Amino acid sequence: MSLILKKFVYFPVISLCFCSCTQDKSKNKNMNQDNISKTIIAMEKTALEELNRGNPSGYLKIYAKDITYFDPFKEKRFDGLKKVQIFYNSLQGSVYVEHYEMIDPVVQVSDEIAILSYNLVSHIGNEVFREKCTEVYRQESDKQWKIIHSHWSLVQPANGKE
Amino acid sequence: MSLILKKFVYFPVISLCFCSCTQDKSKNKNMNQDNISKTIIAMEKTALEELNRGNPSGYLKIYAKDITYFDPFKEKRFDGLKKVQIFYNSLQGSVYVEHYEMIDPVVQVSDEIAILSYNLVSHIGNEVFREKCTEVYRQESDKQWKIIHSHWSLVQPANGKE
Repeated sequence: MSLILKKFVYFPVISLCFCSCTQDKSKNKNMNQDNISKTIIAMEKTALEELNRGNPSGYLKIYAKDITYFDPFKEKRFDGLKKVQIFYNSLQGSVYVEHYEMIDPVVQVSDEIAILSYNLVSHIGNEVFREKCTEVYRQESDKQWKIIHSHWSLVQPANGKE
Repeated sequence: MSLILKKFVYFPVISLCFCSCTQDKSKNKNMNQDNISKTIIAMEKTALEELNRGNPSGYLKIYAKDITYFDPFKEKRFDGLKKVQIFYNSLQGSVYVEHYEMIDPVVQVSDEIAILSYNLVSHIGNEVFREKCTEVYRQESDKQWKIIHSHWSLVQPANGKE
């Protein structure tokens, strides 16, 4: 095979390999992100369903020691798991949500951080309670995901609905 | 020097070196985190001060293309820079804040992600407007920090103040 011919044969083969590798990496990354999204949403639903039965321990188990937490009814942030624990324990048994809808959950993944945001509709008797939620999860050294920041807010009744 | 004596001399020396290296690494990490915190808070203040003069472009410049955004007056999240741009441009010139206080800003750093949270008090004429804010910054490949998630909420007037 002449040198020029070799170039014409090898170049497309190398390019094809390169493209295929890049596509594979991108496919793996997307698959990985999909898996992380599913894991995070499943973790959130498990904790939420426990809370809806009046038990905050589902969330307390997945809060990191250095969590920062904005509650919808409090102005000031709670800094650190201990402060959140004291606050959550004071709520024990006071919440009972018959059913809920997690609306439009999105998980943005960046290495060891996954940011989950969604709308939450909770049905308590005849009342409907609408919230917005942000949870920042971090993958710890033992590969478990923990929440390091949480922001819950109420949808404003006057002009909040679109 | 006997073998045993050597061990007694070398062990503390090696331990000291190891401790010193670990302390140095930890010190560097803390210094790096301090620098990131300062950078993030300064970026946020610059964008906020422009917004307070009625100009949202300070924020639009530092929003990533894949930003997700919860506005305090809207129920639904805006997904992607284009949707946020349209919404923000509709507000152009409608905000004028005489002065503001950024209260208790905290930056949690994890590799390429920095999560800023704070309370904001804005003074508009005789009105005082209280908010909570979460901004998730990501360091892009060009080393610039961009906001990939934003959650603003209003402090509830009835029982929000502590």
